[in-house]
Amino acid sequence: MKIGPQTQRSSAISASNADTIVVRGHDLCGELVGQISFTDHVWLLITGRLPGAAQRRVLDATLVAIAEHGLVPSVVASRMTLAAAPEALQGAVAAGILGCGSVILGSAESAARLFGAAAARVPAESPEAAARALLGELHAARQPVPGYGHPLHKRQDPRVSRLLTVATEAGIAGRHIEIAALIERLVPEIWGRPLAMNVSGAIAAVLLDAGYPLLAVKGVPMLARTASLIAHLTEEQQRPIGFVLADQGASAVEYDGRRPDGFEPGES
Amino acid sequence: MKIGPQTQRSSAISASNADTIVVRGHDLCGELVGQISFTDHVWLLITGRLPGAAQRRVLDATLVAIAEHGLVPSVVASRMTLAAAPEALQGAVAAGILGCGSVILGSAESAARLFGAAAARVPAESPEAAARALLGELHAARQPVPGYGHPLHKRQDPRVSRLLTVATEAGIAGRHIEIAALIERLVPEIWGRPLAMNVSGAIAAVLLDAGYPLLAVKGVPMLARTASLIAHLTEEQQRPIGFVLADQGASAVEYDGRRPDGFEPGES
Amino acid sequence: MKIGPQTQRSSAISASNADTIVVRGHDLCGELVGQISFTDHVWLLITGRLPGAAQRRVLDATLVAIAEHGLVPSVVASRMTLAAAPEALQGAVAAGILGCGSVILGSAESAARLFGAAAARVPAESPEAAARALLGELHAARQPVPGYGHPLHKRQDPRVSRLLTVATEAGIAGRHIEIAALIERLVPEIWGRPLAMNVSGAIAAVLLDAGYPLLAVKGVPMLARTASLIAHLTEEQQRPIGFVLADQGASAVEYDGRRPDGFEPGES
Amino acid sequence: MKIGPQTQRSSAISASNADTIVVRGHDLCGELVGQISFTDHVWLLITGRLPGAAQRRVLDATLVAIAEHGLVPSVVASRMTLAAAPEALQGAVAAGILGCGSVILGSAESAARLFGAAAARVPAESPEAAARALLGELHAARQPVPGYGHPLHKRQDPRVSRLLTVATEAGIAGRHIEIAALIERLVPEIWGRPLAMNVSGAIAAVLLDAGYPLLAVKGVPMLARTASLIAHLTEEQQRPIGFVLADQGASAVEYDGRRPDGFEPGES
Repeated sequence: MKIGPQTQRSSAISASNADTIVVRGHDLCGELVGQISFTDHVWLLITGRLPGAAQRRVLDATLVAIAEHGLVPSVVASRMTLAAAPEALQGAVAAGILGCGSVILGSAESAARLFGAAAARVPAESPEAAARALLGELHAARQPVPGYGHPLHKRQDPRVSRLLTVATEAGIAGRHIEIAALIERLVPEIWGRPLAMNVSGAIAAVLLDAGYPLLAVKGVPMLARTASLIAHLTEEQQRPIGFVLADQGASAVEYDGRRPDGFEPGES
Repeated sequence: MKIGPQTQRSSAISASNADTIVVRGHDLCGELVGQISFTDHVWLLITGRLPGAAQRRVLDATLVAIAEHGLVPSVVASRMTLAAAPEALQGAVAAGILGCGSVILGSAESAARLFGAAAARVPAESPEAAARALLGELHAARQPVPGYGHPLHKRQDPRVSRLLTVATEAGIAGRHIEIAALIERLVPEIWGRPLAMNVSGAIAAVLLDAGYPLLAVKGVPMLARTASLIAHLTEEQQRPIGFVLADQGASAVEYDGRRPDGFEPGES
Repeated sequence: MKIGPQTQRSSAISASNADTIVVRGHDLCGELVGQISFTDHVWLLITGRLPGAAQRRVLDATLVAIAEHGLVPSVVASRMTLAAAPEALQGAVAAGILGCGSVILGSAESAARLFGAAAARVPAESPEAAARALLGELHAARQPVPGYGHPLHKRQDPRVSRLLTVATEAGIAGRHIEIAALIERLVPEIWGRPLAMNVSGAIAAVLLDAGYPLLAVKGVPMLARTASLIAHLTEEQQRPIGFVLADQGASAVEYDGRRPDGFEPGES
Repeated sequence: MKIGPQTQRSSAISASNADTIVVRGHDLCGELVGQISFTDHVWLLITGRLPGAAQRRVLDATLVAIAEHGLVPSVVASRMTLAAAPEALQGAVAAGILGCGSVILGSAESAARLFGAAAARVPAESPEAAARALLGELHAARQPVPGYGHPLHKRQDPRVSRLLTVATEAGIAGRHIEIAALIERLVPEIWGRPLAMNVSGAIAAVLLDAGYPLLAVKGVPMLARTASLIAHLTEEQQRPIGFVLADQGASAVEYDGRRPDGFEPGES
């Protein structure tokens, strides 16, 4: 059955015949393999153009910064999935990717939307007025500020200053970083307590300033995290902890439902 | 409940405190972000050590070679999943990753196991004798040779010669590439028809010769394909074809089951 | 790291020791297995209580109604995933489940939220005034009405009248069905064209009237679709069409990107 | 590109036109919705025929038996995925389904293959000789016996005797249950220690005796577990423990990798 109008029936990413594979207009084997880095290729695939040196450096920095942070929930879910289903590495990677949602890694996209919305109001408004207006709406709606606050790195996230420095060194720091810093300054005034910019906020700001498209911002933490998942799953195959993670998690939770007469729960 | 002995309770990938994030022994912000490429970081995460220049070049080449090949099944599944569930980019990426299985991208791992098994019999046997023995076992078991044959690139896959050239230029071509070439030469003799090495076979051979670990070979096509999925999903958000793909696929299939009296199927 | 306050550390669904498994307060083996239907068990698991006869009949009817509708996008994605990764049936089921999103099966939840919001304004407002107010908001925001309209069953979806009849026969038809019918009547007035209630709208209305919880409405199409996916994947193992679906879908899409001089795309 | 011969281009499960939906030859709305149970529909979808009373009772019993067992790894992974990505219930269900692998719920299929292989050698061999021969092969290959042994229910799994009783009461107990019991008796002799039949073994035996198809056995625990996941995710929306599960799991694991001078890991 036809869902939607289906007027669009083309794609501009890749084509091939028996001898040649074309990616974004380039002969894959003649022009790209062995000549560009994977980071160049990621930028090319997503934007249609090869990056400049500054763009490459910023994309590399964000991917390196967000790939790994230990046994975070997506890694925990992934490792226990491999323990239960070792025949399907791809299933364990997918289980980890599914945890890249609005609360955790997806906040980079939400932050990018916020910074983009503020930037779009300039120059009709000053950057500060634009940021203040949007923060006021979030506060009134009792919503959090995406890209600010971290459960461990409360005072400051070391990745933030590093990413901002890289952006400055690369010469691409611009409006979105300016707005991101303004927001960090305005939060205590509006919410009554400080919230440091976190790595998702910094990633959003530096990518947008580098000319990376908003619609693909969420892809950066997902791609980076895929590398981390593969590393953890390689370790899991050799030194498995998946069932320890599941068991210890479950042990911390009590049963508080009804129970038949005389029943006592055992070790979970 | 405790599944398995659970004697292993440690991990060697990352640790952190409020000020510092350590990845594979390095201070993430002080030593890595802004200083190494994402490809360096992938190698570091998976192996525990930063790559040499030749290793980096080979890993880059394999990631670039396998990332994109148009509307392959995993991309098709991913784009129709985003059309149905646009609120969850991570779900569409996961659906695509789930198609990295034994028949398609996972064959890189199967090929790596074959090359590794042959290499392990050397020098007790000659490389040719080792390859011949393993191929004989596969043929007797009526199993395919993983890493050889392609539905489109029948005579030769342009990515194969390119990857082998890069490995040679980088100075890492060794035993596994030798065995992979031997197998291509032996297949017509044993199966009675030629089967060209495909990109999965070439990836397996050059990665093993570069010192990349066998257990993580499948991760390379998965990581590369994640980049491709993000590019396709960025396009899908702007020029959607997900429901066209599903509808046109379904239209090619007839219903051949029982039908109530007088029922005629409509357009599917 | 601790994300969130983590004050909640209990669950009320199940507990066990070496001899007994308790589910929602019942001895699983002594009271449930062999004595209740799976539908009873689904209701018990989700709500904490066994259903009455009318509730069981309505839940059965909705699950039967929504399970299967041919080669819909989620089934297409699932079958091509199994073709690519036959070692992991669970991966193919998961790929299909990932297509139960806001546009397709998840609209049952959106419809339930709409009906619930309208019902909550009664009796302060009349049902019609409540429905009219909420539809007005949707129309002003240029949003669709969840639970109405279908690409194939344009005039009427045969599952809708059947589900409403079952609800009436079971004696549970109430406020939510009333509101769902009102909305169908009001849509032409507000949008200027009719949109028939679809199966998602009907499922939402009859489940809410039966006392099924709003937060679990989306679970009904997901559970039903899982049964359909298993049937399709059983057929796929015997009569594979997964790669036909992918190939025919891809063939309908043209490449409209840049191409190197002299390059002509082959058959996709 | 065409992968495989693609000669098969039909499906026998469902067809529809604007007025009628046909499922397995039945008019969905005229014959099925409101008239059969979901369990009947599951059997119909998978086998093409409605079940008899004994078949329905056995399928209901297996689905009820395997649906829920507390905070098992698939539930833990699912709940932490919802905590990280609350916008996508389907993603959390999929993450849980991905844990239905060869080690945990998928062992029902492996057990079914074992019982089926033994049954296929009868009457050329006695059931005991067939079972003994196959167990001998598993033991020689140092492989486990699928369907036997459980980390919590070591002496006996209460679900096993209950399912076997239901099968006997339903009048379908036959060759596969006989073989399953024989294997339990032979294990101590061959492995030198007892291993009680577990719920996966019992499910495999009673389903095969009821005439349920081997290729779909793994679907039963997956379908049942989907119901459990929906119940847990409904609770997770109201009383979240997902991040507690992840954090407590991670806290049980130490970092044993290299560390920069002076670095001390904080609370994980």
